[in-house]
Amino acid sequence: MREVAITGIGSTPFGKIEGRLGPSLAVEAANAALLRAGVDRTEIGALYLGNFMSGPLSGQEVLAGLVAEELGLPNIPCTKVEGACASGGIAFRHACLAVASGLTDAALVIGVEKMTHASGAQVTSALNCAMDNEADGLSGLTFPGVFGLMWRIHAAKYGTTRDQVSAVVMKNKANGLKNPLAQMGASLTLEQIRQSAQIADPLQLYDCCPVSDGAAAVVVVRADRAKDAPDLPIRVLASAQTRGSPRISNQAANCSFDANVAAGRKAYEMAGVSAKDIDFVELHDCFSMAEIIDSEDLGLVPRGKGAIWAAEGRTQVGGEIPINPSGGLIAKGHPVGATGVGQLYEATLQLRGLHPNQVKDAAIGMTHNLGGTGVACSVSILARPDA
Amino acid sequence: MREVAITGIGSTPFGKIEGRLGPSLAVEAANAALLRAGVDRTEIGALYLGNFMSGPLSGQEVLAGLVAEELGLPNIPCTKVEGACASGGIAFRHACLAVASGLTDAALVIGVEKMTHASGAQVTSALNCAMDNEADGLSGLTFPGVFGLMWRIHAAKYGTTRDQVSAVVMKNKANGLKNPLAQMGASLTLEQIRQSAQIADPLQLYDCCPVSDGAAAVVVVRADRAKDAPDLPIRVLASAQTRGSPRISNQAANCSFDANVAAGRKAYEMAGVSAKDIDFVELHDCFSMAEIIDSEDLGLVPRGKGAIWAAEGRTQVGGEIPINPSGGLIAKGHPVGATGVGQLYEATLQLRGLHPNQVKDAAIGMTHNLGGTGVACSVSILARPDA
Repeated sequence: MREVAITGIGSTPFGKIEGRLGPSLAVEAANAALLRAGVDRTEIGALYLGNFMSGPLSGQEVLAGLVAEELGLPNIPCTKVEGACASGGIAFRHACLAVASGLTDAALVIGVEKMTHASGAQVTSALNCAMDNEADGLSGLTFPGVFGLMWRIHAAKYGTTRDQVSAVVMKNKANGLKNPLAQMGASLTLEQIRQSAQIADPLQLYDCCPVSDGAAAVVVVRADRAKDAPDLPIRVLASAQTRGSPRISNQAANCSFDANVAAGRKAYEMAGVSAKDIDFVELHDCFSMAEIIDSEDLGLVPRGKGAIWAAEGRTQVGGEIPINPSGGLIAKGHPVGATGVGQLYEATLQLRGLHPNQVKDAAIGMTHNLGGTGVACSVSILARPDA
Repeated sequence: MREVAITGIGSTPFGKIEGRLGPSLAVEAANAALLRAGVDRTEIGALYLGNFMSGPLSGQEVLAGLVAEELGLPNIPCTKVEGACASGGIAFRHACLAVASGLTDAALVIGVEKMTHASGAQVTSALNCAMDNEADGLSGLTFPGVFGLMWRIHAAKYGTTRDQVSAVVMKNKANGLKNPLAQMGASLTLEQIRQSAQIADPLQLYDCCPVSDGAAAVVVVRADRAKDAPDLPIRVLASAQTRGSPRISNQAANCSFDANVAAGRKAYEMAGVSAKDIDFVELHDCFSMAEIIDSEDLGLVPRGKGAIWAAEGRTQVGGEIPINPSGGLIAKGHPVGATGVGQLYEATLQLRGLHPNQVKDAAIGMTHNLGGTGVACSVSILARPDA
């Protein structure tokens, strides 16, 4: 397989974007990415679009073909892929495969979601499509409930406390304040978090990512064509996609997601690096407890220490392994299908040394995108050309 | 790219299947395909699943990972792809690419849809997600309306009559009577069709495919591994995927879909064959008029002659180009995400000489799967090993 690089990147802000539909957000992000891709849009040979809930929330599918038409792309294969919240990461992997396999020299990846126009009940119902509803639906659990349960188990196993978990929240909210694309950056105290509304005990308001609109896009090209691009091309060392059980009962008790562990291992192997080579990670903190579990599953933090490391400041920018310098899902927002592509946008800026919350000397970065209760996962490893 | 072959195939009947959910249908079809694939299920390296409306109609997404778990597949990438009614054909193309590119030696393709449990209004609303609703929604057209309009234009341009179009219906309904998987085979007269209910003038009841449940699956393997399979392996000469405008106004006036024309051309080129080498085709007759347009777009029938050829019997089994010997969508049924994979199931049986409505000496067959108002199209060309 040929080497692949990211050239153009684009993103809308994440947040509540009124008066516009998903396709319009997707077109904005994609046009920005195409403008700096170093290839003409007539050279784009495949489009992969990650989206999860445009059908139920907006009554609109076929987004891949629809957006391609707006963008004036040639008559190329345009495919929507879905793996719940991991849809964006999965789209990226497929674009990389299209280029790596020699099928095309350039491919466009878009992630998009429009959510804030819908009611809370509609959004919850659409999100719950990511569970195995035949097996787990009767439990009445929604996603906050799942991560609340996992928190209880993490606390029982490792002694994790509210204030340790709050360190994750404070870090990501503070990081979000530095990111102009972020929906809900904030400067929070332990006390404010402790006093916030209960959502699914012990999970409280600030532990949860918001409901968001947004789109992000990246162009991937054959590495030897990447030098034509105006901005520093970023190498794709690995893009792995795995699956896990869709059943909560098969996952929660271990405070771990099989799909996370497998995707991490596979990505390290593909890239020929190990966890300690990773300079920063943008990972899937749909809830504070998710960041803790993900960071442990990926081997970035010792098992059981996810919250303690956050409390000790080791996961801040400047710490041993900066986690979510963008603010993550908790502060940047979580437009579901866009999230995985947004992470690649942020990681590319970091590796170019241009991020508003820059990790010093970042040379190798990781992105991690998780779907449902661990049913799908995508992990990518990116690097500066000189790394 | 390496050569690829279909080994195992499986399908549920298409029709009204009560008391079961989509995943259960998918598992049944996939298990049948895996049983005759000539590879162990631990060798399956990728799963692609085509589905269109499980979210809105069943409140269940993440079908790819969910079904993989039920099937006991290894921890492999499992991806749902969506391109409206072309979802199944798109899934097949991606499985072929995964094997052809060397990523894996075997991949599983599943198409599935569960529709009949929902109300007519819910189904219509879910189907309409395949249009560009911002551009065309205000017209109030649903899909029968679109094909009714195209019929009027076809009639004005080429003098196509009700009774000529009825020849398509009678042929497919009669073919369906011979197919044990078909939902609505029938022996119909011109008079019965003329007297049936108006749906979207001039389109009448028997011109429309029914609402269906069903699943189909195929296993694709590296051609040099295919000899281990118990049944005759079928070569994949081409699998092309294209896009077209999602706007009705950009398509209808020409009585042609750009995506059809481009997919046909590309598939012929990939396969190194021309339209006259095709011994039969399973094509996307969601409406009788769709069969006429598709057959013309693919160059199988001269432009404007689609209905006349049907009336002259040239598209029957035994005619110059047998179209939809399975009964097609009109008689076999149209479980949306399953349809494209079901076509490959039927074509494989034909090329093995085992079809219940066998085309004599069939050596090269084509499948054609169209999404929305031409926003996506997939065309594959298959061949007997000795062809």
